[in-house]
Amino acid sequence: MNITIIGLGLIGGSMAIDLRKRKFAKKIFGVDNDILHAETAKNIGLIDEIVDLETGIKSADLVIIATPVDATIKMLNDIMNSLDNQIVTDVCSTKFQICELVKNHSKRKNFVASHPMAGTEYSGPWAAISHLYDGKSTIICNKEESSNIALKIVEDLYGALNMRIIHMDAKAHDMHAAYVSHISHISSFALALTVLEKEKDEKHIFNMAGGGFRSTVRLAKSSSDMWAPIFNQNSENVIDVLDTYISKLQKFKENISTNNKQGINDMIIDANKIKRIV
Amino acid sequence: MNITIIGLGLIGGSMAIDLRKRKFAKKIFGVDNDILHAETAKNIGLIDEIVDLETGIKSADLVIIATPVDATIKMLNDIMNSLDNQIVTDVCSTKFQICELVKNHSKRKNFVASHPMAGTEYSGPWAAISHLYDGKSTIICNKEESSNIALKIVEDLYGALNMRIIHMDAKAHDMHAAYVSHISHISSFALALTVLEKEKDEKHIFNMAGGGFRSTVRLAKSSSDMWAPIFNQNSENVIDVLDTYISKLQKFKENISTNNKQGINDMIIDANKIKRIV
Repeated sequence: MNITIIGLGLIGGSMAIDLRKRKFAKKIFGVDNDILHAETAKNIGLIDEIVDLETGIKSADLVIIATPVDATIKMLNDIMNSLDNQIVTDVCSTKFQICELVKNHSKRKNFVASHPMAGTEYSGPWAAISHLYDGKSTIICNKEESSNIALKIVEDLYGALNMRIIHMDAKAHDMHAAYVSHISHISSFALALTVLEKEKDEKHIFNMAGGGFRSTVRLAKSSSDMWAPIFNQNSENVIDVLDTYISKLQKFKENISTNNKQGINDMIIDANKIKRIV
Repeated sequence: MNITIIGLGLIGGSMAIDLRKRKFAKKIFGVDNDILHAETAKNIGLIDEIVDLETGIKSADLVIIATPVDATIKMLNDIMNSLDNQIVTDVCSTKFQICELVKNHSKRKNFVASHPMAGTEYSGPWAAISHLYDGKSTIICNKEESSNIALKIVEDLYGALNMRIIHMDAKAHDMHAAYVSHISHISSFALALTVLEKEKDEKHIFNMAGGGFRSTVRLAKSSSDMWAPIFNQNSENVIDVLDTYISKLQKFKENISTNNKQGINDMIIDANKIKRIV
């Protein structure tokens, strides 16, 4: 099938690699506002052809919107208005507002709201890698609002990417995503900011950063283009979980300040229960 | 040389493996209060012989104390009192109180305060692995308080473990360790506690936990036996950095609550500067 990918960064580019290798895509068209990204994607072989948005939609059986959530929201209605029989999916990390936006669109059934939960801290077409999605989960939201054929094609797409498919209501998705994914990013951004402020002499960070610090701060390298709109979109859930997170830190601080060894110990043992799950 | 390792967990056990393989140790004696740990260490070949503390000291050229910092502080003076010409080092993550404790001991010159900055989230002799220390940094504190020969032997020890050696004042060490290492652990423990509280349905954590969450929460699996005493020992520095961390999170929250997209974006771009260093 012919596929058009809008947004040729880590997410769209990594899909392109495996969809081609696994023969799910016959021809891949690429759309990107950033001409450097578009040309790079063409030059390194992620896409066959750079096209404008209109041509991209007309030429495709399946359109994948792989742009940050703010950009996706801005163009989604225009894309939906241009559809004949094409199927469209997006890959955004927040789903409620996107589903609300197109809820009453006459072509709603052509659209599948999805969120493949995979990524790295790098971005741009240079960051695209094979096997990014293998074995990970993808969430498909509000599937009853999509046609069976649209759903089948998008599930086949994620099947070709070797992903586990989970169905979820868009509102529930955004809540769980805040709890599991969005808060991890904020905790990591704040850690980087803290250490950079405290350690004016960067040599010490470099010398003393063990594997633990590197692992915890890794997500702080993530792109602001992608993440600022996510926090903005999902503000209610993010603030809710951030409040809980801050209160846990304050409890740690209180136990340390009052020399409450048992309290510190109990909190760590409770935290260790995460071993049961990941 | 004959080496006695007190504390046969991840840290001491991993040293034993490579010190033997690389022929730095001729014979390795092991001391551990926990009989299961001691016998496991013997059975899986980490040590040659289980001995009591007194025999361990008498039989060794070099004594490595690889117990949590509270246990180390409890026995350090007794160990120092039993020394003839043996050299002693410890591996604790906080160094100021340890150095204070032995500052005026008649055998102070036989002791080298060190902190090899390596580890995993696992513990016990079963967690011991080869190459744990390769390429990592070890901090030696207050070296002027050790004799040249003691320093030489301990530097050779870390040389055999392929570590980079950094010298630092004990007080400065504890401050930098709080900034780079201890805060990472608290941020991760608090993240686990938050997600476990928010996600009563653990299936969702399992399904939706991507590589990012796994990486950020990894340290939350760390042992309370090791970490509770560290936070306690280094409380002043830990509280100071925790205050900064909480204030960064509150700033994030404020920007998200007020829909300040530029503010969120700027914080993420500032956090991205960590790329220059790690």
